[in-house]
Amino acid sequence: MTVPHLATALKGPLLELERRILAAQPNIEHWFRSQWHVHATPFYGSVDLRNSGFKLAPVDMNLFPGGFNNLNSDFTPLAVQAAMSAVEKVCPEAKSVLLIPENHTRNTFYLQNVAALVHILEQAGLKVRLGSLNPEITEITTLATANGDSVTLEPIERRGNRLVLADGFNPCVVLLNNDMSAGIPELFKGLEQTLLPPWHAGWAVRRKTNHFAAYDKVAAEFAQLLSIDPWLINPYFTQVSGLDFHSRQGEEEMARAVDEMLAKIRAKYAEYGIEQEPFVIVKADAGTYGMGVMSVKSGEELIGLNRKARNKMAVVKEGLEVSEVIVQEGVYTFETVNEAVAEPVVYMLDRFVIGGFYRVHTGRGVDENLNAPGMHFVPLSFESACLPDKKGTPDCPPNRFYAYGVIARLALLAASLELEATDPDAEA
Amino acid sequence: MTVPHLATALKGPLLELERRILAAQPNIEHWFRSQWHVHATPFYGSVDLRNSGFKLAPVDMNLFPGGFNNLNSDFTPLAVQAAMSAVEKVCPEAKSVLLIPENHTRNTFYLQNVAALVHILEQAGLKVRLGSLNPEITEITTLATANGDSVTLEPIERRGNRLVLADGFNPCVVLLNNDMSAGIPELFKGLEQTLLPPWHAGWAVRRKTNHFAAYDKVAAEFAQLLSIDPWLINPYFTQVSGLDFHSRQGEEEMARAVDEMLAKIRAKYAEYGIEQEPFVIVKADAGTYGMGVMSVKSGEELIGLNRKARNKMAVVKEGLEVSEVIVQEGVYTFETVNEAVAEPVVYMLDRFVIGGFYRVHTGRGVDENLNAPGMHFVPLSFESACLPDKKGTPDCPPNRFYAYGVIARLALLAASLELEATDPDAEA
Repeated sequence: MTVPHLATALKGPLLELERRILAAQPNIEHWFRSQWHVHATPFYGSVDLRNSGFKLAPVDMNLFPGGFNNLNSDFTPLAVQAAMSAVEKVCPEAKSVLLIPENHTRNTFYLQNVAALVHILEQAGLKVRLGSLNPEITEITTLATANGDSVTLEPIERRGNRLVLADGFNPCVVLLNNDMSAGIPELFKGLEQTLLPPWHAGWAVRRKTNHFAAYDKVAAEFAQLLSIDPWLINPYFTQVSGLDFHSRQGEEEMARAVDEMLAKIRAKYAEYGIEQEPFVIVKADAGTYGMGVMSVKSGEELIGLNRKARNKMAVVKEGLEVSEVIVQEGVYTFETVNEAVAEPVVYMLDRFVIGGFYRVHTGRGVDENLNAPGMHFVPLSFESACLPDKKGTPDCPPNRFYAYGVIARLALLAASLELEATDPDAEA
Repeated sequence: MTVPHLATALKGPLLELERRILAAQPNIEHWFRSQWHVHATPFYGSVDLRNSGFKLAPVDMNLFPGGFNNLNSDFTPLAVQAAMSAVEKVCPEAKSVLLIPENHTRNTFYLQNVAALVHILEQAGLKVRLGSLNPEITEITTLATANGDSVTLEPIERRGNRLVLADGFNPCVVLLNNDMSAGIPELFKGLEQTLLPPWHAGWAVRRKTNHFAAYDKVAAEFAQLLSIDPWLINPYFTQVSGLDFHSRQGEEEMARAVDEMLAKIRAKYAEYGIEQEPFVIVKADAGTYGMGVMSVKSGEELIGLNRKARNKMAVVKEGLEVSEVIVQEGVYTFETVNEAVAEPVVYMLDRFVIGGFYRVHTGRGVDENLNAPGMHFVPLSFESACLPDKKGTPDCPPNRFYAYGVIARLALLAASLELEATDPDAEA
């Protein structure tokens, strides 16, 4: 197992944060345990982190993680063990799972992610088959993945209130690896099978600002536990709605929100003696794949955008129009892998960290979105897997990974609170 | 991670068994899940397996495993994850554990095992301190382990119905790594803290024959699941009691039991066309550390034992007299590591396989007890950690390890049934 070359330019305050995280480890784990007794763990998730040296924070939380193929396969057993836990909780009698992937049948890397996920679930002792929502899949179709494995997609049928396959395969659980950006298909309405994640976790319903509102609560409580300023782990955010990028409706409001946020960040930077220039990320409140994302250093940059820039912001996956954005404090990433800018992505199954990778982009800067064409992935080595090595200095890789695992799990907990708050079936 | 050189002389029928285990994997895991819903998982355990090529069976089950230091440290994360599961189940609010090791303060390898166990529990987020029952430990004592780590032992105090340490450390759970061969100390009676494993798991109460009676049930049910002869995974056994090795009382009865068993084994060997000579192991029904063990090929060998041999059989750990033995079908081990005879030992925490090693003895034969002075340990690589690789042939190491993990978990399940059956507080 190789540890990727990992460099952090600024070390001062973050070392202090990591030192506190390490010292409080039993309290942190105990706190997580008690949280998971009250809040249901999402089935799985991945979190994009940014580490600026003075701040370590989640900037995005994906509840339909792709990229299982980018994890270090040495740690498949961890994922399998976690999957056993997850399955046991959801459906103790579960024997079979229908996994529903995204519709992109030509992205062989995505197909490899599907194969990796199938592998993990099979090792956990489940019968797994793949049901496709893709209208092109009208019969059993085997496709090759990027590394030469294969996956077999089958058309989904509905019998009564259950999803089944043509030969009668009648799963206990329907697991989505499809984020339902286009909304919940007719086929899925009123299902009696357990649907994971629940459909309100899909981007047709989900809003980033709901997630970060929940994260505010989690970060505040965690910061109290550690006696730290919650800002060290939590980026500012606000929502701007009622936008129409085509007609430039709302751009002034957006610009104002950006400037207000830059002022708040500037005050914090002054408080901590940080000399970087503050920046802000503007992105679609409901969206994924790094689409509709801008990095700006003043509100002015949003006024009078040219057509190309507006078109880029206006539409996300499945052609959905963007009318709401999240304005989020930008967190510099001062991590580099082989001199290219990098940000860690941490994967979780049930309540366990099961691996991660660096998203690396050779063509992007420390204040830019790295989730863009041209990115590549370097598996994180969790050799001393997100476990603190008390003999090491706080910035030795295992400890940094432990801190990453903790912050990622805070985002997972926030997702749990978010799903509770947005559950349409919840009692008032 | 290196895979130890692993060779099996006979491959025929075991390949068939492994093939069935692999093919039935989802059913097996589902079956285990349903079993663990009805039976409480022991906190931890290790199982000695023997693989004769035609038979793969547990021959001993330890509920106070030492040897955590011999596990492949690459898989510490698996152990940590399993420990989190175990702790959450037993005592969701647990923050602190008092671990009580064996009294041997001069065995630096054992101390290293204690350090390894402390490390796992700390990583799972527990405050762990070591309480010693050793009367020599009258103050806080730090001892060096074999690899240069250290462990700190403290005298135990009792306040009311709780065990505490001098500074007021008041743990939620008392975890024993001491098998209580000498019986339950006065200090432990009527404790309100959770004691793990329960005291009737200690060798003062426990009997190997109770374990293997429970294993009979488990193996029968599992064999039915797989449509195999349960004998392929289950050694014959019987108990002989009322013995006095010093006065030779009961030696004829022992010899008769051995000869009857040899006849049964011979019949099975004939049925399967096995040409080896059957043998039988006679060992103390309550005992550990490989003390009081004989390997015999006829009942006659037990008649008129010389004083030295009788002394060896008469007394086990803590000087306890042996009046009951288990007569157990011997299972050849045809596994070798660097040409020395070897047997796998599989470690489990909660319901998860977390690693293992080969016990290797250069001076012993294929029909002998390897748990004897001169043995050494080679960590098992669980690189594809007890997970079947469906692309490999059934005898590729990962698959053999998966089969080992399955059989080891059968023994763990038997231990669970055994502890239920022998629980003095259970309702009739």
